[in-house]
Amino acid sequence: MSTSGMPPAGARRHEPDTDTIVGGILGGDRHMLSRAITLIESQKPEHQRKAHEVLDRCLKQKTSSIRIGITGSPGAGKSSFIEALGEVIIRSGLSLAVLAIDPSSRQSRGSILGDKARMEMLSGRKEAFIRPSASSGHLGGISPKTHETIVLCEAAGYDVIIIETVGVGQSEVEVDTMVDFILLLMLPGSGDELQGIKRGIMEIADAIAITKSDGAQEGIASISKTEFEAALRMLPAKYPFWHRQVFLTSSVTGKGIAEVWENISDFFKELRKKGMFEEKRKEQLKSLLYSVLEEMLKREFFTHPEVMRLKEDVENQVLSADLSPFSGADTLMKAFTRPR
Amino acid sequence: MSTSGMPPAGARRHEPDTDTIVGGILGGDRHMLSRAITLIESQKPEHQRKAHEVLDRCLKQKTSSIRIGITGSPGAGKSSFIEALGEVIIRSGLSLAVLAIDPSSRQSRGSILGDKARMEMLSGRKEAFIRPSASSGHLGGISPKTHETIVLCEAAGYDVIIIETVGVGQSEVEVDTMVDFILLLMLPGSGDELQGIKRGIMEIADAIAITKSDGAQEGIASISKTEFEAALRMLPAKYPFWHRQVFLTSSVTGKGIAEVWENISDFFKELRKKGMFEEKRKEQLKSLLYSVLEEMLKREFFTHPEVMRLKEDVENQVLSADLSPFSGADTLMKAFTRPR
Repeated sequence: MSTSGMPPAGARRHEPDTDTIVGGILGGDRHMLSRAITLIESQKPEHQRKAHEVLDRCLKQKTSSIRIGITGSPGAGKSSFIEALGEVIIRSGLSLAVLAIDPSSRQSRGSILGDKARMEMLSGRKEAFIRPSASSGHLGGISPKTHETIVLCEAAGYDVIIIETVGVGQSEVEVDTMVDFILLLMLPGSGDELQGIKRGIMEIADAIAITKSDGAQEGIASISKTEFEAALRMLPAKYPFWHRQVFLTSSVTGKGIAEVWENISDFFKELRKKGMFEEKRKEQLKSLLYSVLEEMLKREFFTHPEVMRLKEDVENQVLSADLSPFSGADTLMKAFTRPR
Repeated sequence: MSTSGMPPAGARRHEPDTDTIVGGILGGDRHMLSRAITLIESQKPEHQRKAHEVLDRCLKQKTSSIRIGITGSPGAGKSSFIEALGEVIIRSGLSLAVLAIDPSSRQSRGSILGDKARMEMLSGRKEAFIRPSASSGHLGGISPKTHETIVLCEAAGYDVIIIETVGVGQSEVEVDTMVDFILLLMLPGSGDELQGIKRGIMEIADAIAITKSDGAQEGIASISKTEFEAALRMLPAKYPFWHRQVFLTSSVTGKGIAEVWENISDFFKELRKKGMFEEKRKEQLKSLLYSVLEEMLKREFFTHPEVMRLKEDVENQVLSADLSPFSGADTLMKAFTRPR
């Protein structure tokens, strides 16, 4: 059978150069934005180098997007809430990018929510860019890549960047270093979760929305509102100028969604008035520096020729108890020479 | 006022040498074990060096402790459950060490559960060693230190090591690299949490105990049991030889606690019979090697004289947008020279 006319087996998909990618992103080409995000997520050294070039140039753009983290337990209705909020944002004349972090289950290595149809309405709007992103392996699902993706979306001119995180705990603390405002979504009747680790999450929230406050749940939702308000009063203020509110919302009836958006808009007005918006961006840039640095350090270590040469041997000696993990780590550290 | 007879202001508390510490640990001196754990947790380089010497020698001990991770949402009743289980373990003639990971709230930097009286009964038993340990800063509350503390407790001769983790998500995945058996505690009626991230936790569980199955909650607990059993059937088997069970338990009435312990004991019998116990220890040792290595790498990087000299300047340039975080990270990486 003839294979003439077919591309050779080893042929690569044509890869655009840095200029083309950056030009595309700044020109609002969603396809190019998507490709740049894929480039960022790639582990290949040549892709990493190119991604950093693209990011360097995107960072030079003057942008004024606002960054919102939306978080809550699984089942809190985050996707539906974001759909409803997204509609309100678009109606107010703004564009938005939604970065949805998919938690991956470790054993099956699959994306739990990947198979669910998510944010269908919003996906069809030209003002919205939705990017689900698997957390594959990185702690808590948020990685430096998420922060880098925010930078690209800002350069592409999106007015509002929403980062959706799933899970309870660590990922919220990490997302806090990347966003300006954190909205915590809670289910009606979840007030009894107020102890323990939830408190840590409430501390970083700038507003709370109780979801699914419709039909038979309205009564319980109102009680939860009172409970959360009481809990918020017990916590130290995050900003002296900002009073954290609790909203009753429903993605089905639309209740409270516009009020949440108004609250978020008010926050940014205050933040800018106090001159704190720029300050936040600087803190975020600093945290990006250190997360990039940590990734680079690990990559350089584990691709160092001498470390790679010794690694298996050290591992075997540790496993056969001829070497302790501490001495093993020492040996590999000594192998990690770097020229002056 | 005379200060004669008082120790000089700069006097340090006498620090025992490595021999004394190791001798104390192996001899079952709880006070010395506590001090060694404190040494491990110290950030000072001289303490780190000494801690590694102690650990190296403790690792040489032939031990056969079993390691159990107990996890569940805040409010699931972990401490009471461990108290009840601890009594059963002690009655069966074994000793136990409990390492309770306290989640720290980021903003207040305080330990949420630190002020609660925890495991009061167990604390009074000579067969039990309880060590609460603040997670301060480390992702998910579990750190290489936890693993190192396990090594010390094993050398001290404890038959059973229980690691209690609070939180949902990441910490369970990390504890999975340190323990042999994971028991997931769930509240009655929590079956609706079965979606999303919970699935990832269920995948690593070797048994589930529904807590607070007493009084008015017994009915709901039974329904939850059926739901969890159904959910477990949908998940891939963790071990071909192990059928994961769901238990109804109450720390108040003692219901189901002995059955859980019997189940855990059966698991270890099977594990040893299949020759997989040693294999597990090897996997754990390997993961300890890499977590120690990562810590060492970061410490060496951030204490490197040239990195320390440039760090502030690079940070400032990044903050004033004269340098991108990527170029900044590059600059610091280049400064990290290491002699051949």
